[in-house]
Amino acid sequence: MSFSRAEAYAPATVANLGVGFDIIGLALEGMGDRATVTFKDRPGIVFSKISGDGGMLPRDPEQNVASVSARAFLDHMGETRGIEIQLNKGLPLSSGLGSSAASAVVAVVALNKLYGEPYSRQELLPFCLEGEALVSGYHADNVAPCLLGGITLVAGISVDAIQPLPAPDDLHIALVTPKVAVPTAEARAVMPSHVPLKTLIFQTGRVAQLVDALHRGDLRALGEAIGLDKVAEPARAHLIPGLAQAREAAKDAGALGVFIGGAGPTLCALCDDGVIAERVARALQAVYCALNLTSEICATRVDNRGSVVLRAE
Amino acid sequence: MSFSRAEAYAPATVANLGVGFDIIGLALEGMGDRATVTFKDRPGIVFSKISGDGGMLPRDPEQNVASVSARAFLDHMGETRGIEIQLNKGLPLSSGLGSSAASAVVAVVALNKLYGEPYSRQELLPFCLEGEALVSGYHADNVAPCLLGGITLVAGISVDAIQPLPAPDDLHIALVTPKVAVPTAEARAVMPSHVPLKTLIFQTGRVAQLVDALHRGDLRALGEAIGLDKVAEPARAHLIPGLAQAREAAKDAGALGVFIGGAGPTLCALCDDGVIAERVARALQAVYCALNLTSEICATRVDNRGSVVLRAE
Repeated sequence: MSFSRAEAYAPATVANLGVGFDIIGLALEGMGDRATVTFKDRPGIVFSKISGDGGMLPRDPEQNVASVSARAFLDHMGETRGIEIQLNKGLPLSSGLGSSAASAVVAVVALNKLYGEPYSRQELLPFCLEGEALVSGYHADNVAPCLLGGITLVAGISVDAIQPLPAPDDLHIALVTPKVAVPTAEARAVMPSHVPLKTLIFQTGRVAQLVDALHRGDLRALGEAIGLDKVAEPARAHLIPGLAQAREAAKDAGALGVFIGGAGPTLCALCDDGVIAERVARALQAVYCALNLTSEICATRVDNRGSVVLRAE
Repeated sequence: MSFSRAEAYAPATVANLGVGFDIIGLALEGMGDRATVTFKDRPGIVFSKISGDGGMLPRDPEQNVASVSARAFLDHMGETRGIEIQLNKGLPLSSGLGSSAASAVVAVVALNKLYGEPYSRQELLPFCLEGEALVSGYHADNVAPCLLGGITLVAGISVDAIQPLPAPDDLHIALVTPKVAVPTAEARAVMPSHVPLKTLIFQTGRVAQLVDALHRGDLRALGEAIGLDKVAEPARAHLIPGLAQAREAAKDAGALGVFIGGAGPTLCALCDDGVIAERVARALQAVYCALNLTSEICATRVDNRGSVVLRAE
C-alpha cells in the first residue's frame, strides 16, 4: 500500500561509547527529529519548512542531509515525481547527539513509507549514509542505532556490518550538553593518525569487556570499560571544558561510567537507576554552572524502538 | 586437608585468537602437561625428572618456568620446606600451544593442592605469571585459560582482569604445527610499535564482533571476525611458511576462520563440526607436505575443565 504523505520520527543517538570509537552507538529515548514527506507532481526536492534549527541548516536541497538522503532513495526507486519535506529538528546541532543522522533517517523512513515500506530499517542504511556523509563522512555509528534503536555494533558501512547488541533493561543515562561549539570536523582533526601497539591492546581489551558486559547485563563492568578510552578522549579533552570535573562529579553522584557523546560536547553518564541518573544530571549541570556555562541536561534511557512512522495518508 | 604429594594436569592453550591479540585465549582438549610435586624436608626446589621436552628445558630451578612459579607460591606461603618436581611435558616448546603457561600452571596447581587448595584457580594467576614472565613477559592470555579452561578475556594481568567468555558447544578446532621454529621473542620483535587509527577502528570492531559472536553462539560470525586480524598476522606472516595456502586449504575444506595460535607456528582453524575439523586438519597437513615440511595435526575442542588435580596423597 502506498501513500502520498507520511510523517516519521528518528531518535537522538550517541556514537563512540568511550572505548567504542567509531564502532558502537545507541539510541536515546525522548529526543528526536520529525519530518513529513509529501509527493509532488513536479520533480525535485523542496523544503516547505524547517523548524527548530534556529535557521542554521541549509535550505538548499543539495546541501541538507535530509534531502540528500531522500534524493539517494528517490534515485534508487527511479522516481520521476518530486517531494516536499517539512523538517522539525528536535535535536540540537553539533552537540554529539546525532542530529545529522536523525535528519538523514527521518526523511528516508518517511519516504520508505510512501512506497509501502519496501525496505527494512536495516536496508535503508545506504541511503541515510549518503546524507550523513555530507557532514561527517561515511560513518554508520549514529545512523544505525537511529534506524534500528537500541545499541548497535557497526563494524563497517555495509548493511550486514550492523549487529544489534543487547541493551540492559536497567540502564539509565544522564546527559549534559554545555553550550560550547565542538564542530565535528575539528573533533576529527585532533584525532591521532597512529596509536601505540599497547594502546591498541588496551583498547581492544576494553571493547571486549564492554560487549561482554552488555551481554551479561553487568552495568558495573560496562561503566568501567566504557570510561577507559585512551584514544579519542585524550585527544579531544581540551575541546570539552570541565571534562575532568564533570567525570568526578558524575561518579560522586553515583554514575558507573562517563564518556563523550559522539564528538561532544555532550557528556553521557551511565547509571543503574533512574533516580540516580536525575541526580547525576543535576551534578553535571552544577559543574558547568560553576564554569559560567549554561547547559541542557536530561536523564533518559535507551530507545529500543528506533525510527518510527507516526502517520501516513 | 593437606598432602605431601600431588599430581596435576594443565591443558594446551592458544592465545591471541586472531584479532584478539594479547587479550583472548582458549584451552584445548586432549593435550597438556603433567607434574607431580612432593614436599621435601630440605629447602629448595629440585627437578627429580623432566620428560617429553627432548632435553631442551633448563634443569636449573631458577631458569625453569615451573620452578619459578612454584617458588613464588612457596615464598608467598612462607614455606620453609622444599619441593621436588617431576614434570612431564606433553606440549611441544615454542609452538604457539602455551607450553610455558602449562609448565607454570601445572606446578602451581599441584602445589596449591598440597596445602588443601587454599586458593581458587583464578587466585593462582599471579604466581603463574611469575614463571610465564621468564619466557614471554607478563602476559596472562595463555595462563588464564590454562588455569580456568574455556575461552577467557584477559584485559590486564590482575586477577580481576580475567573474564570467562562463553565457548559455543559446537565449536571444533583443527590444528597444524609445522616443524619450523618461531621463537616467541622474535615473533614479538616484529610487531609494529604503532598502528594507524583506522586499523584500531577496524580491529576494535572485529574484537567486538568476536565477543558478540561467542555470546550468541554464532560460529560463522566468530570465524569471520577472528580471521580478519590486521595487526599481528601481517607482521608475522613471513615467520610462518605457507600461511596463505594453509588458510585457503582450510577454508576449502570447510573451516570458518583461521588464525595463528599465539606466536605461531601452530595454525588454528575453527569449524562447526568434528568431521569437518578432521578433514581441515588433513588439508592443512597436505599443504605443509607439499612444502616439504613435516607437521603435527589434530582436531580437538575447547577444554572447559582447565587445570585439574589428578591425585594427591
